Amino acid sequence: METQSASLAAALKEIGAEIDDAFDGLLAVPGDARARLYEAMRYSAIGGGKRMRPLLVVAGCDLFGVGRDRSIRVGLAVECIHVYSLIHDDLPCMDDDDLRRGKPTLHRAFDECTAILAGDSLHALAFELLADEATHEDPFVRAELVGALARASGPAGMAGGQMIDLMAGEIALDLAAVTRLQQLKTGALIGCCLEAAAIMGRAPAEGRTGLRGYARDIGLAFQIADDLLDHEGCEERAGKRVGKDRDAGKETFVSLLGAERARAQARALVDQAIDHLRPFGEEAELLRAVARFAVERDH
Amino acid sequence: METQSASLAAALKEIGAEIDDAFDGLLAVPGDARARLYEAMRYSAIGGGKRMRPLLVVAGCDLFGVGRDRSIRVGLAVECIHVYSLIHDDLPCMDDDDLRRGKPTLHRAFDECTAILAGDSLHALAFELLADEATHEDPFVRAELVGALARASGPAGMAGGQMIDLMAGEIALDLAAVTRLQQLKTGALIGCCLEAAAIMGRAPAEGRTGLRGYARDIGLAFQIADDLLDHEGCEERAGKRVGKDRDAGKETFVSLLGAERARAQARALVDQAIDHLRPFGEEAELLRAVARFAVERDH
Repeated sequence: METQSASLAAALKEIGAEIDDAFDGLLAVPGDARARLYEAMRYSAIGGGKRMRPLLVVAGCDLFGVGRDRSIRVGLAVECIHVYSLIHDDLPCMDDDDLRRGKPTLHRAFDECTAILAGDSLHALAFELLADEATHEDPFVRAELVGALARASGPAGMAGGQMIDLMAGEIALDLAAVTRLQQLKTGALIGCCLEAAAIMGRAPAEGRTGLRGYARDIGLAFQIADDLLDHEGCEERAGKRVGKDRDAGKETFVSLLGAERARAQARALVDQAIDHLRPFGEEAELLRAVARFAVERDH
Repeated sequence: METQSASLAAALKEIGAEIDDAFDGLLAVPGDARARLYEAMRYSAIGGGKRMRPLLVVAGCDLFGVGRDRSIRVGLAVECIHVYSLIHDDLPCMDDDDLRRGKPTLHRAFDECTAILAGDSLHALAFELLADEATHEDPFVRAELVGALARASGPAGMAGGQMIDLMAGEIALDLAAVTRLQQLKTGALIGCCLEAAAIMGRAPAEGRTGLRGYARDIGLAFQIADDLLDHEGCEERAGKRVGKDRDAGKETFVSLLGAERARAQARALVDQAIDHLRPFGEEAELLRAVARFAVERDH
């Protein structure tokens, strides 16, 4: 267990450095009035975040022997979407957060309109990255990746989930509705990480089903664990405001199930996620470590 | 001349109806809490706008014999980006506009966070549309379209131009800088309409160069004409607030050149644009009519 956590920590650190390098190259500041826009993107994209999504893409791609340069590039595209969504979600009219990853949110450090444009720019860059032949020599693979990421981040995925979340203070959601909300808001993009890996690896149908099940289960497990951390609340460790769902009168897995049942549910999901990886044998050890991390982390 | 204008008006009306139908199908309101998001997208996307960009895509595609279903689909994707950009540009922290296309802006009719999410959703849908095999059976064409639209709308295109525009009140721009601003802010997406047509039609290199020149010239001509209309100002016809650049102390083509020279410059650009179409012969009549419309319209 100790060794697994250590190897996961090492993998996250390594991928974090690669993603930072890749963002550094992608977001070179131009010598014109757009400099502020690029500096804003760099502020949010570089040097922060667990890089869990790029790790999922890379670990998934590893199952199919996809080269590292390419898998990092796909991970970078997914991270562009993740970072843009955090920038927009933090805005005053959305969650109105002042703190993200332990530093002022982008609209606090810069201003609101720069934040909106930086998010929009990262959004476009994600698709520019995937469409480029450096991602894969087969254009069918590139088009499939674009379709998968667009579906996961659009109104049938992440953006739709954020809409439901914004209305959750007004509508009383039951467990099924909270599950659905989280499957859209965070689950769709996590699912896309593994789907993208399967596309890059031209995985057979069985492999895709297993990875889809794994992604669904860890997506929910991470969210339940987030709710538990939020419930137990430590702002310093989380690097962001905690207890805000409770303050907003929103139902969470913890408010609906109670902390003990929520914890048991998260553990059961992790076991189920790991079970989905059986066909991949030892090669999937890193993905198993990610699943365990969902419920063992303290931030 | 009368006949040309009439045929352009007929073409815009026809394409407008097709785009409205296509949006109606794309944005069917789901029976869950995302309904508000889809209603917001419909409010901004359906029944408004000149549909000049879809017309450019379709008229460009016609030069290469691309089927109408497909060219409308590509025009729809570009229009998704255009509509999303208007929604975000109208926000209080950006241009703070209350009126768009003769009705309240989306954030006034709904609210700010719904407007941001509706913009983000249309942004993702544009790429989902292009990546789907209904757009073209050759995935290379689909990937090329995605790359072109992402470049045109991202930080090296439209979003970058909007950033410069936002800073234009603070920095004194000269004619070259205003030209560059407009080439990014509006020119890149107009250029993408013709580039997308060339990609769909697998146009040879010469055809692409001509269309690129045409797009660059009409992009600037439209902007100069917009500045002239804004200068002469009639809110009722424009369907939006006029004179706002002047109020914000921003330089425009009219403030830098004076109205008379600006008008002459726009006319020269239109002649130059039409010149670029010579290799296409009579087939390009609709694109010529669009160029003339740039300087002849009153809204």
